[in-house]
Amino acid sequence: MKQPLLMNINNSVFLQDHALTMIDRRFLPFRKVEVVASDFDEVAQAIEIMVVQGAGDIAITAGYGLYLAAYEAEQNPSYSREETRNLIIYAQKRLINTRPTGYHLAAVLNKMVNSIKWEMNEWSYQLLQSVNTIIEKQQTRSQLTGKWACEILEDGDTVLTHCFPGSALLYMLSLAQEQGKLVKVICTETRPYLQGARLTAWSVSELGIPVTLITDNMAAFCMNRGMISKVFTAADRIAMDGTVANKIGTFQLALAAQYHKLPFYILGYGGPDRSCCEGKDIMIEKRDPREVLSFNGINITGEKVKGFYPAFDLTPPQLLAGIITDRGIIPASEVGKYWSLPVRDL
Amino acid sequence: MKQPLLMNINNSVFLQDHALTMIDRRFLPFRKVEVVASDFDEVAQAIEIMVVQGAGDIAITAGYGLYLAAYEAEQNPSYSREETRNLIIYAQKRLINTRPTGYHLAAVLNKMVNSIKWEMNEWSYQLLQSVNTIIEKQQTRSQLTGKWACEILEDGDTVLTHCFPGSALLYMLSLAQEQGKLVKVICTETRPYLQGARLTAWSVSELGIPVTLITDNMAAFCMNRGMISKVFTAADRIAMDGTVANKIGTFQLALAAQYHKLPFYILGYGGPDRSCCEGKDIMIEKRDPREVLSFNGINITGEKVKGFYPAFDLTPPQLLAGIITDRGIIPASEVGKYWSLPVRDL
Repeated sequence: MKQPLLMNINNSVFLQDHALTMIDRRFLPFRKVEVVASDFDEVAQAIEIMVVQGAGDIAITAGYGLYLAAYEAEQNPSYSREETRNLIIYAQKRLINTRPTGYHLAAVLNKMVNSIKWEMNEWSYQLLQSVNTIIEKQQTRSQLTGKWACEILEDGDTVLTHCFPGSALLYMLSLAQEQGKLVKVICTETRPYLQGARLTAWSVSELGIPVTLITDNMAAFCMNRGMISKVFTAADRIAMDGTVANKIGTFQLALAAQYHKLPFYILGYGGPDRSCCEGKDIMIEKRDPREVLSFNGINITGEKVKGFYPAFDLTPPQLLAGIITDRGIIPASEVGKYWSLPVRDL
Repeated sequence: MKQPLLMNINNSVFLQDHALTMIDRRFLPFRKVEVVASDFDEVAQAIEIMVVQGAGDIAITAGYGLYLAAYEAEQNPSYSREETRNLIIYAQKRLINTRPTGYHLAAVLNKMVNSIKWEMNEWSYQLLQSVNTIIEKQQTRSQLTGKWACEILEDGDTVLTHCFPGSALLYMLSLAQEQGKLVKVICTETRPYLQGARLTAWSVSELGIPVTLITDNMAAFCMNRGMISKVFTAADRIAMDGTVANKIGTFQLALAAQYHKLPFYILGYGGPDRSCCEGKDIMIEKRDPREVLSFNGINITGEKVKGFYPAFDLTPPQLLAGIITDRGIIPASEVGKYWSLPVRDL
């Protein structure tokens, strides 16, 4: 199986000499710029400026940040155990506050901290073990989600996708390829950061699958012309009522899909956020409006024009054909059934 | 009344020393680059590469091109009357073929040629007179359309618009301002050429009206948050069944507006194209896919990714609240009634 760079997070986010190296996704696929963060605050900053993106990958990157905080304190003889512990707790909060919308970030960091055996030593080692376990688990989840998603794919399908839905999409497509299903992909470019153009379209093309790029405003036209048969996006957070928070533009695509009676699926990986009852409980991150007013550092409008940048939107369950998880495919309005499904294995 | 540059075509497209000077809209509002076309073919090329845009303004620019063809031939003593006439007919075809979707281009050029009194002399002079008459007529139409549109506006409205709907939008907003109606505007950036960001948002800001820029994929989110009360776009061509061809993305916005029960109005200036029965008769221009694969000359995706660039889409009449013309506001499905309405005056 071909392995595009972003199919496995180990290729683009990894420890080297007790610092975290990240391949800056803002410059992919053109340049492989390495950003090296030597402490948790640098990791937090890298997450904020979107060196890394995608709810799952952000969480793992932050997990490494938590490890760096513990490691830094443990290496410093002047830190007491209590001070080290306090630094870990502080780093946990700092890292969680980087991006509010994605589910995995807080979930992973809280889990990591809660599983520290404080009575033992080498908290940094424990945290690193946790990160590695989570990476493995996420990889398995991606593969299983991709496997379920591939069952929906039919020979001749053209899939529309938005933003970068993570490796489940790539596993889905790889598997379809292996099974001899001819599938094509259309990617929205996903302004303002162009993740669809830079990350998804590129990754899909690396699999050798035909892929076409459109601007975000062309999707309904393509649907109307019969160019699209199914839509798949990821989710940054799924509420228990089946509402999906995902990259801004997802909701608009779901409305266009509904009008054209096209099924819209969510690659939902590990299921919903149990602590989030309804979509309206999900906090939508507003990013710096300047990111909308410029492109690659070049202004695109007049000086007196303001910008507005909600980074995510909410898609109600009524617009969704199903949520595809590592345990199977669930109707969006019944997403809470995720936990009653048997745990699958590869 | 404040006059943004694009409120009157005479500011950006004008004759100088028997050549046509055009302020290149691709670089507005940052640089006022003048493109000078000394013959009709250079005018045609300028239209093709979008130095000038907007169905009405393209038609006038092409009209000047036709004048240049006649003038060039008349100045050349080696041209017989028949050869001059042939050149005019050739230029007419060349200019019409630059952009297929907009209604006004062919309509204006055909009208200009049909009204030449071939038995008289000075065909170029006759053509220039025609262009000037058309400019005046278009200006009046824009003002009247803006006036009717302003009647719909209420104090406190926030208007969403897409691409550059021409001067009727600016007249509508100016008039609202004069009448003391507080109105705000949200512009989609309108990829790939960013007319919304560069031309509309800038022009509206020049009127001193609060304007916010969003990416094309944020419109449904803004509607959902109650940030938008009415939508206005222009039309490049209106079929007799009320289907509207306009900049790609219009259809998608209309779907989002319908879901949110927001009225979607078309600034329809001089009404529908009588020779076009149904929306499906409208030819949708496909532009060079490379224009989607790059931004400001910079590639935005991998080398193996293809692009697709339909420049316009079709919005069915069921999604429209009304078509606003210089003669009044008409339900989209009854747009043919345009000609039975009394001709208005300013």
